[in-house]
Amino acid sequence: MRIGILGTGIVGQTLGTKLVSIGNDVKLGSRSATNEKAAGWVKATRRGASQGSFADAAAFGEVLFNCTSGKVSLDALRQAGAKNLDGKVLVDVANPLDFSKGMPPTLTVCNDDSLGERIQREFPKARVVKSLNTMSASVMVDPKVVPGDHAIFVCGNDAAAKSQVADILKKSDGRR
Amino acid sequence: MRIGILGTGIVGQTLGTKLVSIGNDVKLGSRSATNEKAAGWVKATRRGASQGSFADAAAFGEVLFNCTSGKVSLDALRQAGAKNLDGKVLVDVANPLDFSKGMPPTLTVCNDDSLGERIQREFPKARVVKSLNTMSASVMVDPKVVPGDHAIFVCGNDAAAKSQVADILKKSDGRR
Repeated sequence: MRIGILGTGIVGQTLGTKLVSIGNDVKLGSRSATNEKAAGWVKATRRGASQGSFADAAAFGEVLFNCTSGKVSLDALRQAGAKNLDGKVLVDVANPLDFSKGMPPTLTVCNDDSLGERIQREFPKARVVKSLNTMSASVMVDPKVVPGDHAIFVCGNDAAAKSQVADILKKSDGRR
Repeated sequence: MRIGILGTGIVGQTLGTKLVSIGNDVKLGSRSATNEKAAGWVKATRRGASQGSFADAAAFGEVLFNCTSGKVSLDALRQAGAKNLDGKVLVDVANPLDFSKGMPPTLTVCNDDSLGERIQREFPKARVVKSLNTMSASVMVDPKVVPGDHAIFVCGNDAAAKSQVADILKKSDGRR
């Protein structure tokens, strides 16, 4: 499958490496089509890995992952372009964290709204599924580092989209 | 053990009945020492069950449960009296829900503060433990109505208090 990942940080790179390792082609998207972190990741990952702008990654992917910082996610998705999101499953991994007042961070949106809902409202034709955002990147790609059974939230209002994301998660977990 | 429960609603009554059934003496506290709902519960529960004011219940209990509506919890605890809370484990089951704008409710406090933290700040000598507030009363007292394994949050900054609450929860669950 072709997967577009928005964001070149530790989350985007870690998910990208895992998704390539299980047979997907992954394009890492950034504000700049020649982002150095993405270039380093492509060089390290090789086969199946590529980079581009947010729009390039969104156009490339059949399924998209938003791994940008929550504060800039809406802006990144605007650069990706609504037409490149239409009808596609968009896994929103971002958290709207505000570190400006130090640790622990606060949320820039909460209670009666959420980043996932804001993304869905602005891009109504994207099929937004919230998942993976409650754990660190190392756990996202290798849940067995945490002992015991696991449960993961997969949230959205599109049952088929959630089912597709659950399939990707199961496959990434080596359970099928 | 003597347990004081603040609040005579479905949560307070359901927990009270369960705690009596496993051998505790429970006093249900309310704004009025002769609250009709509490009187009905005492009559139905009989042995081990009693009622009183918030202050009566707080003075009676070796361990306390806050089962009041989150909007009025601080006021109820003020009526219970700080001296009746000092040094005691206070299991905070309340949620600060605001139903004034209809369903679903919103939270009156969230993000960088919480009801449990507000209670702890106002009553620094109480040993506040947040638990049970993420499920309905029927699940609180009989978790096996939900199939599969269970995890429950037990939150606070006093390890001994959390351990005591965990013991009560295990005993209520019939696991020891």
